[in-house]
Order: sequence, then C-alpha cells, then structure tokens
Amino acid sequence: MSADLITSPANPRYRHARSLLHRKGRTQHAQLLLEGVRLIQDSMSAGFAPALFFYTESAPAHAAALRAQVRDQGGQALCLAPELMATLTDTVSSQQVVAVVSQPQLSPGHSGLHCLVDGLRDPGNLGTLLRSAAAAGVDQVHCLPGVVDVWSPKVLRAGMGAHFRIAIHQARNLADVERLLAGRNWYRAEAEAALDYSAVDWLQPSVLIIGGEASGPLTTAHLPHVHPISIPMTHQVESLNAAVAASVILFEAVRQRRNSAAQG
Amino acid sequence: MSADLITSPANPRYRHARSLLHRKGRTQHAQLLLEGVRLIQDSMSAGFAPALFFYTESAPAHAAALRAQVRDQGGQALCLAPELMATLTDTVSSQQVVAVVSQPQLSPGHSGLHCLVDGLRDPGNLGTLLRSAAAAGVDQVHCLPGVVDVWSPKVLRAGMGAHFRIAIHQARNLADVERLLAGRNWYRAEAEAALDYSAVDWLQPSVLIIGGEASGPLTTAHLPHVHPISIPMTHQVESLNAAVAASVILFEAVRQRRNSAAQG
Repeated sequence: MSADLITSPANPRYRHARSLLHRKGRTQHAQLLLEGVRLIQDSMSAGFAPALFFYTESAPAHAAALRAQVRDQGGQALCLAPELMATLTDTVSSQQVVAVVSQPQLSPGHSGLHCLVDGLRDPGNLGTLLRSAAAAGVDQVHCLPGVVDVWSPKVLRAGMGAHFRIAIHQARNLADVERLLAGRNWYRAEAEAALDYSAVDWLQPSVLIIGGEASGPLTTAHLPHVHPISIPMTHQVESLNAAVAASVILFEAVRQRRNSAAQG
Repeated sequence: MSADLITSPANPRYRHARSLLHRKGRTQHAQLLLEGVRLIQDSMSAGFAPALFFYTESAPAHAAALRAQVRDQGGQALCLAPELMATLTDTVSSQQVVAVVSQPQLSPGHSGLHCLVDGLRDPGNLGTLLRSAAAAGVDQVHCLPGVVDVWSPKVLRAGMGAHFRIAIHQARNLADVERLLAGRNWYRAEAEAALDYSAVDWLQPSVLIIGGEASGPLTTAHLPHVHPISIPMTHQVESLNAAVAASVILFEAVRQRRNSAAQG
C-alpha cells in the first residue's frame, strides 16, 4: 500500500476536488475536475497542467505514466481509496483517475464566426457542440445564463477535449454579448424560416445562435436583429438535434470560406 | 380505481410488453415498445396504431385523449399499477404511458442516397443519426450486425419519431448489403482522407458508411470499393461525433441536390 493513500473524506485535497463537482465550487476556484485518461492527456497536451491528480491502486497501467507526467509538470499525485474515488466520478466505467486543472482562458480566434448558446440544457448536446465548434474553427463560444454549466463533467466528457481548444465565454447577460458582437450578422435556426442556411454569406462576420431543445423561451427570442434561417428537411421531420443543426450550419460556413480561399 | 387495473406481474399482456424490453423479444414479435406521449403520437400520425396502450392513474391529462385515440383505432388500453409501469420505462421523468406497436416496414425512397451503419454502439448516436437521415431524405438506413439494436427504447427516444419516417434494414451480413447496393459509390469518413467530402459528387447514387466511435474494427474496414473522405477540421480536433459527422455530410449531399434542381 502506498504511503500517501488518502482514506479520510475529511482530507482537504479530496474535499477540494469534491467541491468541483458543483458549479458553485468550479466558479469559486476557477477550476474543473477531469475524469479519465483521455481528457487529462488532452488538457496536458494543450498546455494545462493539473494541479492535483488522484488515482487508485487499481488504476490501469497507463495511469502510472500520466502520474509521472503530472509530477514532472509540478502537480501533486495522490493515491485515493476506491470508495472516495467513486464519489468523484460519475461514469460507469471509470478509469480511476481524476485531475484538477484551472479553467482554460483561451483568446478568441479571428475567423469571424462566433457561436452564442441560448437555453441548451442537455450536457451531451453542449459538449458535442463545443467539439464541432472547435473543429470548425469558431472564434469563441458564448454561453448565456440558463445554459447548462459548460465546465460540468458531462459536458467535458462529450466535448472530448474541445474545452482546451476553443475560447469559451460564460456571459453574465445578453447585453454584454450584444456589445461584444455588435456589427455582425446574427442568425438563428428556426423550423419555418424562409432563408436557407446555405444561401447565407458566411464570409461576413457572423454570430450563430444555438438554442433550445423545445423547452421554454429563449433569451434571444425577441432580438430584432436576428435573421431566422432554416435547414430544409424532408419526411415531415420537424427539427434536428440542436448540436447537429449547429454543426451542419457551421461546416457550411467552413465550406464557403474554404471555397473562397481556393478561388481568391 | 379503474375496473381493469393490472396489478399482477403475471398478467400476460404486461408480460408481453416486458418481453419487448429485450432485443430477443422485439425480434420474435416484430414489435416495439414506445414510451411517452410524443413517440406514441408520432407512431399514430405515421399510421402505426398501437396494439396495446398502458397508462397509470397518475398519467398526465393528455394521456386520456391518447387512450381514446388508441381505442378508436382498435387498440387495447389498459391501466397499469405504478410499480409495474416503472419496470417498463427507463426515463427519469416518465410520462406514465407506454404502447406496443408493430415494427414499421417502410419502403426505401428513391433519392439515390443510402446510409450503412457499422460498429455504432451508442444508442443516442444511432437515434440522432436516424433523425438526421430522415430529415435529409435518405432512402434507407442499413444496420450491420454488431450495431446497437435500432428498435431499443433509447434509440427510439433519440430518434424522435424518425423510426416511423425512414426505411430501416437490419442486415444479416455485409454481403447482403453489398448485393443490394451494388453499382453505387461508397464513402466512409476517415480522419486523414485526402478527398474532401464537399468535393464528392453527391448527385450520383451513393452509400455513406457511418462507423465507429473509435471502438474496435469495422465490418467494412477492408472493403476495396470504399472511398475514404474527410471533413477538414481545425484546432487539432481529431474527429467529430459520429452522428454529427454523418449529418454534416448528408446535408452537403442535400445542398448539392437542391442546387442542381434549382439550376436544372
């Protein structure tokens, strides 16, 4: 048994990690909790070294390499009793490794395309959207109040490392975002909109609002400067999954920009 | 209390419904179990009337209208004890209504675009893919052995009614699908492929393979006639969610066909 095995739930470092399971703790410490080898590797390869790294004695072999890497980068690696580890992880097939890292603060890009998330409650959808937005080279993703916490474990898992690759802005209110993104063309996908998303000129500085899973009103519902756009659909299908719809539109923007660059 | 309240787990109609929670029972009876008002309404509006409809006394008010509709269409509506209902539903916020319907057998469309699902294990991904495929007007979705059961409750939920709008083929093996889809151009998204998905001529009869969530080899891995295609991505993102990648490609095909129709 390791000399530094933590077995007491009163251990301050364990308690600190526990506090990051909740939005309040994450906000207070500007830190987040990463679960699993893949996410922890992603954060390190993006330059975000864990401050704390917890593992159990039954953690898989490659956890040892990860532990050495964390220590090399100045982090603390601590062996945790399995019953304490169980309270820090929420996946069924936990890999028995968890890390504490600072919330990434990345600078926005300059491609001209921003995403504004409004009313999204499903963590899987938000994570998938971040992954697509990072892949599409979106400058920044802005989350309005009411959106599921972008730093929650489930969003991190679905994001597959996107959180370390794209600038994320937790907006305090809509007015802040309006000031920040003034002078751009704003769009939101709506089922009955007349304007086809592929007819939009995505070379212009743009904001794509991703909103709603048919659950309650949107903060941006009555903004006068938002252009409704639609994705033409067949078979009486009313809507796409929110992350899917956003991805289809974002990659159309990417396609137009790529075509324009090839011609220009 | 209703006269026909079912309280015994030995009730044959309740037991029949229970058997549909498993793939074996669904295959044997060629039926499936629908949970929630929305899915049951979707099946009826697509012309698939439930044979059985179960509700509890605490089901929401709109369940009564649904019950009347089921009876009008020749189905049996039965009041179930809450503890039995709990064994038929797996969502946290159950609406206390469940229906048994025949597996839809829809005819393939004639747009020229087919999807072949290979190695997809996540029910949410398969349901989301079906929803996108139906919306994109795909002719038929073929599922290879090894794919999560397309008629399982979680896939039905994520499909949001797509199961009643698009032809679905549970293929016995790859050879059957190869015969069925011979003479078409076959494509599969791969991270490093040189061919850009938007440079493909999607007006030709095509098959898009949707495969893998980075878990194990694909049945279609060594097919010589498959063209690898890629979605260009930034920020060192390695891949998109499988359903998202498929949707981006399918709606590019739709866009090309729409443009061609507008010009032709």
